[in-house]
Amino acid sequence: MQLKRHSSNPILLPNPASDWETYNVFNPAVILHNGLFHMFYRAQGLDWVSRIGYAVSVDGIRWNRLNRPVMEPVDASDSRGVEDPRVTEIEGEFIMAYTAYGSEFSGEGKPTHFGGGILPMFARSPNLIDWQQIGPMVKGEDNKDHVLFPSRIKGNYMAFHRRSPKVWLAESSDLTHWPEESMRPIFGPRPENGWDSLTVGASGVPIETEVGWLTIYHAYDASHTYRLGACLLGLEDPSVVIHRPKDFIFEPREIWELRGDVPNVVFSCANVVVGDEVYVYYGGADHVIGLATVGLAELLDFARFG
Amino acid sequence: MQLKRHSSNPILLPNPASDWETYNVFNPAVILHNGLFHMFYRAQGLDWVSRIGYAVSVDGIRWNRLNRPVMEPVDASDSRGVEDPRVTEIEGEFIMAYTAYGSEFSGEGKPTHFGGGILPMFARSPNLIDWQQIGPMVKGEDNKDHVLFPSRIKGNYMAFHRRSPKVWLAESSDLTHWPEESMRPIFGPRPENGWDSLTVGASGVPIETEVGWLTIYHAYDASHTYRLGACLLGLEDPSVVIHRPKDFIFEPREIWELRGDVPNVVFSCANVVVGDEVYVYYGGADHVIGLATVGLAELLDFARFG
Repeated sequence: MQLKRHSSNPILLPNPASDWETYNVFNPAVILHNGLFHMFYRAQGLDWVSRIGYAVSVDGIRWNRLNRPVMEPVDASDSRGVEDPRVTEIEGEFIMAYTAYGSEFSGEGKPTHFGGGILPMFARSPNLIDWQQIGPMVKGEDNKDHVLFPSRIKGNYMAFHRRSPKVWLAESSDLTHWPEESMRPIFGPRPENGWDSLTVGASGVPIETEVGWLTIYHAYDASHTYRLGACLLGLEDPSVVIHRPKDFIFEPREIWELRGDVPNVVFSCANVVVGDEVYVYYGGADHVIGLATVGLAELLDFARFG
Repeated sequence: MQLKRHSSNPILLPNPASDWETYNVFNPAVILHNGLFHMFYRAQGLDWVSRIGYAVSVDGIRWNRLNRPVMEPVDASDSRGVEDPRVTEIEGEFIMAYTAYGSEFSGEGKPTHFGGGILPMFARSPNLIDWQQIGPMVKGEDNKDHVLFPSRIKGNYMAFHRRSPKVWLAESSDLTHWPEESMRPIFGPRPENGWDSLTVGASGVPIETEVGWLTIYHAYDASHTYRLGACLLGLEDPSVVIHRPKDFIFEPREIWELRGDVPNVVFSCANVVVGDEVYVYYGGADHVIGLATVGLAELLDFARFG
């Protein structure tokens, strides 16, 4: 089972006439709300700082983008960029998980991300345009690829995060405090399995089904080729892996996935349920944005039995 | 009493790097919804066809605009442009009143607008981005400057429209049928009064107050200078003029209001209540967009007793 590329790919390109999305647009969050697709994409411009742009679409394919970012760095904790958004609608508001990449490290541990330090941040918005920082999930560690679940479990907010090389689960009563004692690893790389042998991390918001949380994740191998996989996690306890197929569901094959700013990368932060289809948006080679789709039933069947 | 220009004026300019908003941006609708200012502005580009662009703002002053229009001509009835939007929020949806300027006239009367024919159109949207045509208020006459009231009166939708040179009222049970028998003139030009001696037309959505509908309107004189005035109309029957001050509240004075694509024009399609202020957005000389403000209490006091 492989995701199917949309014929209009790539669906979003950098804008060479812009100062802030000059070189790369990639790794978008996408949500379907009130009849529109809303995209939040990472963009790099003349200063190579990552900012988050917004585009809107009626069909999920043709996009109309705002000419300025909706999120930019505000201080030394994110001055090198705000990266890789995942947006969740929950209880009437929108929560963005994103990575802050700073020039000054504000945590207690050691800076680990290219010498600067990163923070797995959350922000909230009532309207998808105006975002207010909530704060980091943790400080002082190399932690990113976090994403909030679309509903609480036993009263708590739930989130994936990544303590390299594994996907972890975290819980919070208020989106601000994420106690260490409730954090636990879910699954890690499979050294014997080739494509997901080195590191894994969550993709978009997990999809709630009757049989469990349908979850797409990324992984890379020794050649640093990024692919996507799927698995099924327990509905009441997502730290339980119900099934994890051996094969990947998507890998770089188009020229614009093989070559770009970072070669051999398909990286997704969005798997949107659209009717009975799943729209998987992804960055191609950290340079452009693509769309691949699959039937929801087919993907779920693969995650259960593949 | 005069409106006060904002120090950031003009707040929106044409974009010479664009194909569709190259030359002029003017006459915007603006509504405040869900914590954001949403602007719909008329734009003219390389082909001089009017399209409607969208911009969003947190403060009503600094705007972030989409790179493509949200409304464009679709057939011969509007192929020369969609113009001068006014947007009303009513009963959970958004209604845009706009003027369709066509190359082929679909009505029963004679084309009268620069030889082509115009239609006072309505469109609806659940989300401010995706607009569906409802249809014209009337056909076969020179009728524009129409705008929907923000609530029904005695079960009917109410709208201003202009049968030149007067402001008229119309009623509808469904936004589609606007029976001729319920149409009636409200007020016209005052030949003896200089600034509003030739023609008048409604500005933005009228403001409901305890003492009546606070209404801003435009007028021009023999020199074709466009100014703004205010009046108060009956709450239960807006065809009753409670008071209409003699003086105008705003006139072209800045260079960019005196010179542009059409000289000596301030023309407004939006008077937004923001706390205890009224934000009046306007086109300056059919070329750029400005903002002028006034206290709501001060404006109401003027409309009642000025």
